[in-house]
Amino acid sequence: MISIDALQRIHAASCSCASDGRVATYIPALARANPQALGLAIVTAEGETLAAGDAWTRFTMQSISKVLALAYVMTERGEDEIFSRVGKEPTGDPFNSIIRLETSAHGKPFNPLINAGAIVVSGLMPGSSPEDRSARFRGFVGTLLGRSDVNKDAEVYESEKSTAARNRSIAWFLKELDILPGEVEETLDVYFAQCAVSVDAVDLARVGAILCADGVDPVGGSRVLASRTARVCKSLMVTCGLYDGSGEFAVDVGVPAKSGVGGGIMATVRDRMGIGVYGPALDDRGNSAAGLDALRRLSDEFDLRVL
Amino acid sequence: MISIDALQRIHAASCSCASDGRVATYIPALARANPQALGLAIVTAEGETLAAGDAWTRFTMQSISKVLALAYVMTERGEDEIFSRVGKEPTGDPFNSIIRLETSAHGKPFNPLINAGAIVVSGLMPGSSPEDRSARFRGFVGTLLGRSDVNKDAEVYESEKSTAARNRSIAWFLKELDILPGEVEETLDVYFAQCAVSVDAVDLARVGAILCADGVDPVGGSRVLASRTARVCKSLMVTCGLYDGSGEFAVDVGVPAKSGVGGGIMATVRDRMGIGVYGPALDDRGNSAAGLDALRRLSDEFDLRVL
Amino acid sequence: MISIDALQRIHAASCSCASDGRVATYIPALARANPQALGLAIVTAEGETLAAGDAWTRFTMQSISKVLALAYVMTERGEDEIFSRVGKEPTGDPFNSIIRLETSAHGKPFNPLINAGAIVVSGLMPGSSPEDRSARFRGFVGTLLGRSDVNKDAEVYESEKSTAARNRSIAWFLKELDILPGEVEETLDVYFAQCAVSVDAVDLARVGAILCADGVDPVGGSRVLASRTARVCKSLMVTCGLYDGSGEFAVDVGVPAKSGVGGGIMATVRDRMGIGVYGPALDDRGNSAAGLDALRRLSDEFDLRVL
Amino acid sequence: MISIDALQRIHAASCSCASDGRVATYIPALARANPQALGLAIVTAEGETLAAGDAWTRFTMQSISKVLALAYVMTERGEDEIFSRVGKEPTGDPFNSIIRLETSAHGKPFNPLINAGAIVVSGLMPGSSPEDRSARFRGFVGTLLGRSDVNKDAEVYESEKSTAARNRSIAWFLKELDILPGEVEETLDVYFAQCAVSVDAVDLARVGAILCADGVDPVGGSRVLASRTARVCKSLMVTCGLYDGSGEFAVDVGVPAKSGVGGGIMATVRDRMGIGVYGPALDDRGNSAAGLDALRRLSDEFDLRVL
Repeated sequence: MISIDALQRIHAASCSCASDGRVATYIPALARANPQALGLAIVTAEGETLAAGDAWTRFTMQSISKVLALAYVMTERGEDEIFSRVGKEPTGDPFNSIIRLETSAHGKPFNPLINAGAIVVSGLMPGSSPEDRSARFRGFVGTLLGRSDVNKDAEVYESEKSTAARNRSIAWFLKELDILPGEVEETLDVYFAQCAVSVDAVDLARVGAILCADGVDPVGGSRVLASRTARVCKSLMVTCGLYDGSGEFAVDVGVPAKSGVGGGIMATVRDRMGIGVYGPALDDRGNSAAGLDALRRLSDEFDLRVL
Repeated sequence: MISIDALQRIHAASCSCASDGRVATYIPALARANPQALGLAIVTAEGETLAAGDAWTRFTMQSISKVLALAYVMTERGEDEIFSRVGKEPTGDPFNSIIRLETSAHGKPFNPLINAGAIVVSGLMPGSSPEDRSARFRGFVGTLLGRSDVNKDAEVYESEKSTAARNRSIAWFLKELDILPGEVEETLDVYFAQCAVSVDAVDLARVGAILCADGVDPVGGSRVLASRTARVCKSLMVTCGLYDGSGEFAVDVGVPAKSGVGGGIMATVRDRMGIGVYGPALDDRGNSAAGLDALRRLSDEFDLRVL
Repeated sequence: MISIDALQRIHAASCSCASDGRVATYIPALARANPQALGLAIVTAEGETLAAGDAWTRFTMQSISKVLALAYVMTERGEDEIFSRVGKEPTGDPFNSIIRLETSAHGKPFNPLINAGAIVVSGLMPGSSPEDRSARFRGFVGTLLGRSDVNKDAEVYESEKSTAARNRSIAWFLKELDILPGEVEETLDVYFAQCAVSVDAVDLARVGAILCADGVDPVGGSRVLASRTARVCKSLMVTCGLYDGSGEFAVDVGVPAKSGVGGGIMATVRDRMGIGVYGPALDDRGNSAAGLDALRRLSDEFDLRVL
Repeated sequence: MISIDALQRIHAASCSCASDGRVATYIPALARANPQALGLAIVTAEGETLAAGDAWTRFTMQSISKVLALAYVMTERGEDEIFSRVGKEPTGDPFNSIIRLETSAHGKPFNPLINAGAIVVSGLMPGSSPEDRSARFRGFVGTLLGRSDVNKDAEVYESEKSTAARNRSIAWFLKELDILPGEVEETLDVYFAQCAVSVDAVDLARVGAILCADGVDPVGGSRVLASRTARVCKSLMVTCGLYDGSGEFAVDVGVPAKSGVGGGIMATVRDRMGIGVYGPALDDRGNSAAGLDALRRLSDEFDLRVL
């Protein structure tokens, strides 16, 4: 289907779009990213891997980790533990703000991909300490990625931890509502650690491929996620994966995806492939500018749209 | 793929779920619907029609008309006329409330499938009077359905018109924001008229089939909607087609769909089929109880999920 | 206590502040007001009247009518009829917006001096038709003012009626909440009519004097309002009489007052006097710029503050 | 004017109202208060002190401290330092919620008597450490009260500190908005310490008397607050001193006052007296049930209303 030549051609065509974006600057480690970088990777349902450009450059997952954390906690604790505390409904708002938390129809965060919902999910990760919880989550990610060296970027982690007034406000508000399990600072620690896990575009493509096959790893061939878990993740991704660019992305690209301010986007095309993108120059909505362009081209050229 | 026997089997299995719901009672004409009714219809991408149960019972489109109105105004006026006034972003809120309108990031309704957005779309329909606008819209619907007798239910129309305090409040607020074109009462008249258009499950399946083929009518073979128009409709349907049941529906059924309080659901499965459902007994979120059950069974049995 | 010379001196000193404001322009009749006009009037608790400048120029009461409407409906229908539907709590918000109505703790408008609350009060006025209701309200105002020629400004009334999208939105929302008695358009008609009643600064001073004496008319000597009615009016005036300038006014002037966008301010000083002001050039918050300056000077010089 | 006999008579009459309320139970130290307790104290503008019942029982100031903190920081830092960060506008809402903070017209807390505003004021207290800041604030309170033994209740302080999820959420949100000076936990520490300062009803009456004389201590005879400072405090007290009971209190009693969940109410009657009340059994709105009754009786019998 997609040849390496085609992927490289699309990479070449999308590179210039990086100039339309700007790297995140709220913490120094992100601000140092190369704004011109663009990496594209595909892992097909047959287990083949294609890569172009900066596909092996490491970056922090940031919000993409919310999908993996959701999959992890669904696996470890079950669906009910999460969705008794967090909704399953779409929202495309720019900020996952406290005001929305309060106005939710059911007095809980709208879904696990907004910050408030993701913090609750982090609070449900099993373990004896924040370090233990984080390590076990990285172990789970390693299982999906087929590698044992899944690490967090210590500098990003420390920076996030020291500049997270809004997330602290959200977490304490969740505590006030009696939704958040555990100690607030410990849970935030786990949350910052998960956001700081380093991956590359090939890693994201592989997770996307697992989701495209409803939980079976196309590379290794074994089931690594329950089918239901994969479906819940994909459903949420299609409705709120790209902040308030989710609606336009659904029209233009038409596949479930999740972005992070580190520059990554993870996409999944049912029965066909996972796609990983890295491009740290972000558009106004916090999504990789060149990455979005490449996904649009891929979808158009290879008719990836599922909608 | 799906045989008439299979469809009848699913119809039989889902019928009992009607008891879990209740027909809408806010206007008398809806309250008189038979709560046990269930109609299922499929129009395949090849143009074949399958029907079971009350598939030829007429009912009012209600909110399903928002999708058709969007397609119509995109065709007549172009995408920009709509989306300069209304957003394209998901929301799964139970009510399309004024409070959300005000808090939207960009000061406009979130999308054309919530009431506020749909009223703006109605205000953009071309014509010399409310009657003329409504008639032309019904003409457009007739083109999609391949029949010339598309009518509105006069009793439902009159009832809606006389009990629409919330919609009047929304419309005047849109006027205050200078978003709503035309006269408020005239626009509301067009809106109530579109909601009262009568269809059956086979009609809905046929529109779903047109959407599944990105705008080409599988029955007649000709293009009746621009590809882009079909894609915009489907993208919005997948994120906010079933009120605050949209998220669960995406997990359980996994296809774009739109429901109405008349008991209809219109679904579309890319490249494969359109599905129409009629079941006036509604669940707590305003979606057909038996209809949802039938769609779940169809999706599971025939692997319809696109996510 | 205050001599006519002192009042004229303050008038002269405050006149220049009119240049800091601008007349309301949302309807033509208000836009034609003389921006340099300033009228000051005092009616003392002993029944003496002092006037300076444009104290006999007529203008429309606008929001000041909310106090008189409240007093009227308390008199005619009793306190419970109003306060079962409307709160008694302060709010200093700039706009009496629908969003606040929805978020009110008790699901009702905060108080009778914001638009939503005032519209409910208008809906409670007794009478057989909007015209009859309005005429009876003007009759009540005439009783307080001691004159029989209380009229509405027909042009202002018609203009308000044709440009009131926000008030229509509010009224329909109140209808949806089942708070608003009667027909929406009829109630709005009564509301627009009350806002368009013409008075002068001397009239406002006389009403202020009645309030200062807890309901006894200092000029005529007879009780025209129940003591409780006067107290409720004054309490609401002190907390929300000057839109979102209420807080600063309480610090700077320290007496109950109510302003209108027609340029009027009515103030009341317990046991001492009522004050009427007319100055159509408004500050950013919709309060008479020169009028506020004059009230500040009066309060400072004659120690009027009650707080 | 008011004799000790009259005060004792009113004390006797209001005692039974304590049964209508319940002591606060969110921290153990408050829950142990005697629900039947009622103390009344008056300090007149001439410096005379009257006391009845439990007027010398110590309790924690809680929200009443917001007025003293405002007076302190206005004295130490000036009005602009506060009101560039916090509004001066009334609000009678039951909770000083984050949602209101966000929706404030000017992006800042409405006023210094809601929690969000009060925390900002605490953040402006001068000093080298939280302990130093708290000690200096207690020194200021001691100056007003004419005693050097102003202490905080250590148990209440510790309890508040460990159960303050909502206040932590608010404080971090203020930090996110860049409104809050200093370290969040240090500022909260100062805030909890000020709320836990112990006073009795006579103390509150004395502060009320200082405010009634616009800043001059009627007992000692010297000016202890700037006139402007006293006026700002009283203006805010009259509009939002009794949570969402502020509106009714203004009608019924008609004087500036501030309550706390410790059971205290501090009231001030211009040029006449300060009143202190202690009654830990609270009504639904968090105000002393018997205390409110006593203030109503005092106001009626001695015509204290200033409105």
